Amino acid sequence: MQQDQEFHFSKRMSRIDTSQIRKVFDLAARLPDPVNMSIGQPHYAMPQPIVHSIERALRDGRTSYTPTQGIMPLRERLSLKYKQENNFEISPDDILISSGVSSLLQLLFLCLLDPGDRILLTDPCFLIYRSLASFFDIKMDFLPEEFTRQDIEKINPENLRMILYSSPSNPSGYIMKTDQIRMLADLSDRSGALLVSDEIYELFDYEKQFVSAASLHPKTMTLTGFSKTYSMTGLRLAAAAGPSGIIKAMTTLQQYTVVCAPAAVQWGGIQALDLDMSEYVEMYRKNRDECVKRLSGKLQFSKPGGAFYIFPKVPGKDSEFVERAIKEKQLLLVPGSIFSSAKDRIRISYAASPENLERGLTALIDLL
Amino acid sequence: MQQDQEFHFSKRMSRIDTSQIRKVFDLAARLPDPVNMSIGQPHYAMPQPIVHSIERALRDGRTSYTPTQGIMPLRERLSLKYKQENNFEISPDDILISSGVSSLLQLLFLCLLDPGDRILLTDPCFLIYRSLASFFDIKMDFLPEEFTRQDIEKINPENLRMILYSSPSNPSGYIMKTDQIRMLADLSDRSGALLVSDEIYELFDYEKQFVSAASLHPKTMTLTGFSKTYSMTGLRLAAAAGPSGIIKAMTTLQQYTVVCAPAAVQWGGIQALDLDMSEYVEMYRKNRDECVKRLSGKLQFSKPGGAFYIFPKVPGKDSEFVERAIKEKQLLLVPGSIFSSAKDRIRISYAASPENLERGLTALIDLL
Repeated sequence: MQQDQEFHFSKRMSRIDTSQIRKVFDLAARLPDPVNMSIGQPHYAMPQPIVHSIERALRDGRTSYTPTQGIMPLRERLSLKYKQENNFEISPDDILISSGVSSLLQLLFLCLLDPGDRILLTDPCFLIYRSLASFFDIKMDFLPEEFTRQDIEKINPENLRMILYSSPSNPSGYIMKTDQIRMLADLSDRSGALLVSDEIYELFDYEKQFVSAASLHPKTMTLTGFSKTYSMTGLRLAAAAGPSGIIKAMTTLQQYTVVCAPAAVQWGGIQALDLDMSEYVEMYRKNRDECVKRLSGKLQFSKPGGAFYIFPKVPGKDSEFVERAIKEKQLLLVPGSIFSSAKDRIRISYAASPENLERGLTALIDLL
Repeated sequence: MQQDQEFHFSKRMSRIDTSQIRKVFDLAARLPDPVNMSIGQPHYAMPQPIVHSIERALRDGRTSYTPTQGIMPLRERLSLKYKQENNFEISPDDILISSGVSSLLQLLFLCLLDPGDRILLTDPCFLIYRSLASFFDIKMDFLPEEFTRQDIEKINPENLRMILYSSPSNPSGYIMKTDQIRMLADLSDRSGALLVSDEIYELFDYEKQFVSAASLHPKTMTLTGFSKTYSMTGLRLAAAAGPSGIIKAMTTLQQYTVVCAPAAVQWGGIQALDLDMSEYVEMYRKNRDECVKRLSGKLQFSKPGGAFYIFPKVPGKDSEFVERAIKEKQLLLVPGSIFSSAKDRIRISYAASPENLERGLTALIDLL
């Protein structure tokens, strides 16, 4: 970022560049009634039972510090969830509650990685992975999403400390296959790198293809977010489950940084895990199918298996396409180059009501 | 901390030592009904109007991401508060909302300080200042709390990037005097170091001695916490107000780490700032007076002007005294050496009901 001349900033700050996305936001801010296909959160409201359980917690005085690691009843409920839904067993002692997956990523980077260490990501991947790696001076290696054994064999295991991916993926909706996870687990064993599986979109899995890495590789660090599934991105609740020693280190650092996840919200998390969200997921499956149907033949993309994004190729440069969409159609999209070295992709979010999705798709197709 | 042999940790992690405080916690955890004078939060409940306004926000669907910098109505209300109560003017654009003062400290350290840079603290000071400095490999210089011009003149301004203090102080209740703030401001001007004033205990100011550094030195970064005043330590809400360029850098980094403070809680913060907390403050003034009366002549300490702590000298080593208090009197205290290079002080918290304070003081005096 550009820096104020009056003050001295850390060297890290020179490695954050938000200019591209800011340019898009600045353009978008001038629109009175945009068609929004850029948004990274569900359009539906947080379910009422969660509202009620957070209210109950507030009335019961759950406003003080919780244990740094998070309240035991939520960790116990998560342990049960992992067993029943994710096919792996983990003790509540090896679960850490924090304020969002981003906070957990930050703890992981700070606990495990020194400047010059290496991290393995997929291309494309969630933009915060790349931003944090750059900020903390970590060298990045990339695998294509549909990587094979040949791609893995090219990866240098030296100083490789972390292998990090999200499945279903933001921005592409790609779901990591079992044999791919096994290859990453194998590389983790050979290199000593921690395998980190970001499963924040796990419920948005339209053909039941999603597999938790920890069910195949017990030494995985699983990241579970409440934000997307339950539409509570602003309430800041997530969990990490993994090897005892690393959970302990992250908890120690959390004492001095995050302190704890919002107390009353932690109680709401227990209620959330008991809800049946299948109707919501079905709504987005329909949205995905509509996008695939309408865009096929017009744009080139892989059919997403999950999350609520499509990541197609566009004619020309992504940033120019996104600017043109804003200026000509008041349509908000995200330029793909914040997720990828490719400069000709965009991220389309279909986390929208059917009416807004229709509006967005019509605008996009008109533009093409 | 001691590290798991199976995984590689960052070098930073070897510079966090929580063994001493953990030892105390482990001992304390075995007590069925301890007398708690160790606690860093008010004993009263968060006021009902804040409960209601967070509930209202939840029902209104305030569960999504807020702007990274925080909701504008809260920043506007804070701007008004700073003008009316803290005697300085600052635009809502130069205010950042985050999830607790600890998160703000972390953003400041990451944005401003490189390994080897220097920070000026007081001795004693809040333990997180020392822990973060050590973790990020920052060199620490210390001033005594009642420092004079002679003490300031000994400080080397080279590579000094930050001057950080809390007033009223945790752990001593000391309130920084106007002429001391002027000296720090002068050092800030000479060295280019940012003056950071942590004002989380500002309302617990029993003789109206507290002065906001920003009222004397406009380039100050003011840290304002909601946790202590409104008894909402677990809900994670705080604000930083200061120079535009630094607020912008912190906001940029917050995008990738904290993301935003809990959304519904931000709406509760607006309500909180409208409350009259003087009865609560008066209750702790009485507690302070009772502590001073009962402990005078028995322990050596400076009379605290604010916060809810006393930081007396004890006979022998602090850690042994604290262990003896637990074993003989089921009394929980905090060893002073986590705040100070002195090894013969303890932190007593008087954030308690009159009955519990009486129980604690009796146990402590018995022990002496």
